[in-house]
Amino acid sequence: MTTLAALLLSGAAAPAQELRSPDGNLRMRFSLDEAGTPRYELLRGDKVVVKPSRMGFLLRGKSGAVQFGGDVTAAAPVRPTESLCDEFEILDSQTSAFDETWQPVWGEESSIRNHYNELCVTLRQPQSDRRMAIRFRLFDDGLGFRYEFPVQPNLVYFVIADECTEFAMTGDHTAWWIPGDYDTQEYDYTCSCLSEIRGHMSGSITDNLSQTSFSPTGVQTSLQLKTDDGLYINLHEAALVDFPAMHLELDDRTMVFKAHLTPDPNGDMAYMQTPATTPWRTVIVSDDARDILASRLTLNLNEPCKIEDTSWIRPCKYVGVWWEMITGRSSWSYTDELQSVHLDTDDLTKIKPNGRHGATTANVKRYIDFAAAHGLDAVLVEGWNIGWEDWFGNMKEYVFDFVTPYPDFDVEEIQRYAAEKGVKMIMHHETSGSVRNYERHLDAAYRFMNEHGYPAVKSGYVGDIIPKGCNHYNQWMVNHYLYAVKKAADYRIMVNAHEAVRPTGLCRTWPNLIGNESARGTEYQAFGGSKPSHVTVLPFTRLIGGPMDYTPGIFEMDISKINPENHSHANCTIANQLGIYVVMASPLQMAADLPENYERFPDAFRFIEEVALDWTESRYLEAEPGAYITVARKAKDSGRWFVGNVAGKEHLSDIRFDFLDPSKSYVATIYADAEDADYRNNPQAYTIREVRCTSKSRLRQRAVEGGGYAISFREATPEDNKLPRLK
Amino acid sequence: MTTLAALLLSGAAAPAQELRSPDGNLRMRFSLDEAGTPRYELLRGDKVVVKPSRMGFLLRGKSGAVQFGGDVTAAAPVRPTESLCDEFEILDSQTSAFDETWQPVWGEESSIRNHYNELCVTLRQPQSDRRMAIRFRLFDDGLGFRYEFPVQPNLVYFVIADECTEFAMTGDHTAWWIPGDYDTQEYDYTCSCLSEIRGHMSGSITDNLSQTSFSPTGVQTSLQLKTDDGLYINLHEAALVDFPAMHLELDDRTMVFKAHLTPDPNGDMAYMQTPATTPWRTVIVSDDARDILASRLTLNLNEPCKIEDTSWIRPCKYVGVWWEMITGRSSWSYTDELQSVHLDTDDLTKIKPNGRHGATTANVKRYIDFAAAHGLDAVLVEGWNIGWEDWFGNMKEYVFDFVTPYPDFDVEEIQRYAAEKGVKMIMHHETSGSVRNYERHLDAAYRFMNEHGYPAVKSGYVGDIIPKGCNHYNQWMVNHYLYAVKKAADYRIMVNAHEAVRPTGLCRTWPNLIGNESARGTEYQAFGGSKPSHVTVLPFTRLIGGPMDYTPGIFEMDISKINPENHSHANCTIANQLGIYVVMASPLQMAADLPENYERFPDAFRFIEEVALDWTESRYLEAEPGAYITVARKAKDSGRWFVGNVAGKEHLSDIRFDFLDPSKSYVATIYADAEDADYRNNPQAYTIREVRCTSKSRLRQRAVEGGGYAISFREATPEDNKLPRLK
Repeated sequence: MTTLAALLLSGAAAPAQELRSPDGNLRMRFSLDEAGTPRYELLRGDKVVVKPSRMGFLLRGKSGAVQFGGDVTAAAPVRPTESLCDEFEILDSQTSAFDETWQPVWGEESSIRNHYNELCVTLRQPQSDRRMAIRFRLFDDGLGFRYEFPVQPNLVYFVIADECTEFAMTGDHTAWWIPGDYDTQEYDYTCSCLSEIRGHMSGSITDNLSQTSFSPTGVQTSLQLKTDDGLYINLHEAALVDFPAMHLELDDRTMVFKAHLTPDPNGDMAYMQTPATTPWRTVIVSDDARDILASRLTLNLNEPCKIEDTSWIRPCKYVGVWWEMITGRSSWSYTDELQSVHLDTDDLTKIKPNGRHGATTANVKRYIDFAAAHGLDAVLVEGWNIGWEDWFGNMKEYVFDFVTPYPDFDVEEIQRYAAEKGVKMIMHHETSGSVRNYERHLDAAYRFMNEHGYPAVKSGYVGDIIPKGCNHYNQWMVNHYLYAVKKAADYRIMVNAHEAVRPTGLCRTWPNLIGNESARGTEYQAFGGSKPSHVTVLPFTRLIGGPMDYTPGIFEMDISKINPENHSHANCTIANQLGIYVVMASPLQMAADLPENYERFPDAFRFIEEVALDWTESRYLEAEPGAYITVARKAKDSGRWFVGNVAGKEHLSDIRFDFLDPSKSYVATIYADAEDADYRNNPQAYTIREVRCTSKSRLRQRAVEGGGYAISFREATPEDNKLPRLK
Repeated sequence: MTTLAALLLSGAAAPAQELRSPDGNLRMRFSLDEAGTPRYELLRGDKVVVKPSRMGFLLRGKSGAVQFGGDVTAAAPVRPTESLCDEFEILDSQTSAFDETWQPVWGEESSIRNHYNELCVTLRQPQSDRRMAIRFRLFDDGLGFRYEFPVQPNLVYFVIADECTEFAMTGDHTAWWIPGDYDTQEYDYTCSCLSEIRGHMSGSITDNLSQTSFSPTGVQTSLQLKTDDGLYINLHEAALVDFPAMHLELDDRTMVFKAHLTPDPNGDMAYMQTPATTPWRTVIVSDDARDILASRLTLNLNEPCKIEDTSWIRPCKYVGVWWEMITGRSSWSYTDELQSVHLDTDDLTKIKPNGRHGATTANVKRYIDFAAAHGLDAVLVEGWNIGWEDWFGNMKEYVFDFVTPYPDFDVEEIQRYAAEKGVKMIMHHETSGSVRNYERHLDAAYRFMNEHGYPAVKSGYVGDIIPKGCNHYNQWMVNHYLYAVKKAADYRIMVNAHEAVRPTGLCRTWPNLIGNESARGTEYQAFGGSKPSHVTVLPFTRLIGGPMDYTPGIFEMDISKINPENHSHANCTIANQLGIYVVMASPLQMAADLPENYERFPDAFRFIEEVALDWTESRYLEAEPGAYITVARKAKDSGRWFVGNVAGKEHLSDIRFDFLDPSKSYVATIYADAEDADYRNNPQAYTIREVRCTSKSRLRQRAVEGGGYAISFREATPEDNKLPRLK
């Protein structure tokens, strides 16, 4: 580590300091402007990625006591702020280099290189003698920076009133965005120029069970941008711990994004105690969209794994008593007789069941049988525990106890039966946003899982948070989600949290966080449908922070075939659904459709049976947000390669199999859209063909809009000589 | 039960229905006015106590979705309300009578009569078909009423936006009041006419570590009033469960009080699920102030005891390592070296202690020795657990873990030593308002108490509640306090909660709630002093809801004698302090001063040693709020009688001992202010005299301002013949 400069300038602008990426292609310039405001700038070759952008915070000052005048209608007390974004001088500057390779417990690669150059600038406000450091890490594929507040006499505890960090764009870029919201990310993506966001905002805010928009130009991270001259820029954050989630608010005259944190009920953003660090603010950039998907910057900016023995963390492919409720064929609830539920006093054994309850012992056994027959690992059951009759929208605190089954769900018998069949059970904890109630029951609920053979839990946070005024993504809730994950680790439980804050690479540190939702998942295909391009955007946005429990595998797109009253249509083809298993890598993959729908298409379902969940290598072959993604991955267990493609509009792939071992020859089984496939009118039209191939082979493969394809490879045997050969 | 009327009136006012108290002296009239608004009126003989007063609620209606216009500064969404306070018709009316006698686990009497006549009126709004019942219980000493929401199709879950209940006074009464506040009751009382409240408000709001005033005419309950024609009226609530605490807001033109509930961070008051009931709104009334103190109305309106085996609930007299910290002689914290505490990483064994830490093993043993020598039951120790260096004011969530002692506090050795000496230990859990942190640790903390011989806990809620925006007295927090008490009962632990919501008689239902603070306690005598009349008001206000851990027994009023830097003065005499032990009945009584101060006055301390904690009978002999209270009580264990007096201004008691057994003769030991006693300049001047007496004796006894007296009685023996005889 070298001290570059120990400048003590006051009032005057400091000369810019430059940091270069290991390959020299990216340059970050840090400077103080004439006001003493820290600014950074990011360049890629000769192109500006981020123009000089302000950094820092406003802190909450002490407010005066409330005074009553002659009138009851006293105005809100004045809440002054103190600036931690100007009048800085540079106290110290350190650069260093870092290069190490680490092994994730699961993921897209078995080995990840963490290679960056670092600049850490310590700033001081002479008047208050407050210090703040900004640590920059410049990788070949992007920049991460965070604020650090060392222990110091004049900054011990403090309250952040606003974050001033800017990302000043160079023009009116194209963006794939969803509305900024304190409570949900479950929106369809809009692709528009930055200047068009304001006009599209109202139309982009679709209904959700809990939602809080904050600005007509507010958007969420991870945000994928594309410049007119072909740069792909991705803005997000890494290692969101003990801090509110960051949104972006656009000044659409200047094209400057400003950080917008999720407030607490009081309007404050974060409560800090030194030493403290913020999450990393990240800018991933490349002129090749594939590099965005292949970037490990977000994981690299997180702390190493904190779980010593990770042997119990295992990727998992599962079916579930779920889609039948989502589509409305069956119900989470047991009875229609109760106007509202009183967990303490209702005796459900004496109440007439509605006859539509999904989570019955017999039905669960059917799913266990299906999982066992098809080599799937596990079965999720939702609606097994009492409380579903009035489970959301009522601000009801004692909504579930997480341990009491409905009368028709025999926990012990299911435990015995699943064990006999070699199938694991996945627990479900819907909290309905009643997080205090969840925490009160958490130990008992996890203990119940340990005792009844549930190694993983899907948790949910549907509806408004209690107490009202708290939002899903504020600091208090961010702390809750991690609390649940850490406590789960104590019980050797894996967590897949839905409606929780979006992931920011924390699965590196806590690999028992095997999944999150935090985006518009497959369920919306039963709620009116998602855009056919949706899954070509998610890997550029939501997945930057970690895997998603997207729950793919829909084979019956006409939802009325499942529930005649539901006229929704899944906007995808079967081949698209197969492609997702490879494109949207996750250690947790559901086969979401009903067993009976899979039994109609056993040849296509074969791919879901075979596809791996954990990988040693991943190669992004083609990518363009909103249009197409094609990726090849090598399975950790078998060494087999798989390829997946999803297409947001009609796409003709032209890919080479140069990832294959050149010394071997292979058979590729290609699951693809049929000639006449159409996501709307003919989504079940697929072809499956087997071809011989080698690492020199080249494939031209068409995918329709909302379509895709999937390929599994195996080593060829002499018997395969009869198969056609791919050129 | 008789159906009085099943009227179905719509639009027209209903004739008033009258309910009489068992003795016929109180009358309550219920009616619907022409707007269909329910109104009640209370009369005592011919005097109006409460003029016709509105009843009902505003409910929160559905608000529209947030819409963004062209501007970022979107206005707050419209939050409409629905009226549940007019357009009612009477659907049904039932009257009944009730008379039973029950035995409290502890208290001022061993047997309590619960005797009332009841009227329950069921109302209906024809347009919405919503139903609400109002249940009135009229006792000889006052009225309780509550709202009930039966199960019904059109009111399942609902949100209360405002309570419309009024208490319309007949004139500009005298009131003993403290400022309405969502977070604290720790104010000195102001005595003024109602019309003067507004003018006195600013001066009455003194600094507190957490405080939220809401109105220049807002006051707290229990509120004690006195009319010009000599009626004493007390307004409060009973059985505050799953509802926000009620304050009163005065319209000082009409002299009408309106209920003002404590809001949640969103501005809503209460989340309700039918069937639901509100707490009881109470009006205690008499022309004799003693009846207010003797009223058991608040307890009677609470549910019977819900703890089956109460054998482990035992009244307790204690000393504590506490006053030395309150006065500033010693410290809760262990070190001055830490700028802020990190519980997970700080290693205190390697950090220099400050030498002023109170909770050391040696010091605690000194208190145990003192308790054992003087027959006291227990020792409280504050500051024993790590975290006190930065324990409040920082919105720090992980502030205590409740189980890790400082290096100089040997839990096991203290457990052994206390057991050997036959002394119990009282645990201390300061939460600093970080209630989620407390709940996360609650099981472990209670388990720790069970394992280390702590049968009772003093809990504290100093500072703002986390998450900020939640106030101490809102529904969410009210639910927390009861959660902690119920869970404590599971562990057979008694709770004495400070800074929690004011009591409302819940100790009947949960008698392990042996104490609360919820008012300005003795600690303020070391923070600048309280008014000398303070303890003559508390029994009329704070104690209406249940006992207070007031922590009396200060013998050294010049606080600088304890800590030369603290120039506060306790505004009371020693005789006053002794009187409190009888006047302010509580199953938990502290002898708050330092052992060395008691050792200077062993003859006076004798009264504290002897005074009982639990009673079979209580007779209020004299009472006037702000002026004097004299009470005689008979001990449950020994059958001995004790008398206590406190005087807010100079007072000459003239009392008779007719409570004594007429067949016996007694010796009374009278601890009184000396002739020249003066709370300011000569507070330690007391006299102790022994006199022979019988049930026919009459005592004239002077108490100075801030003074008082205490008397213990024992049966006379022949050897007592030498003692002077009281006339």
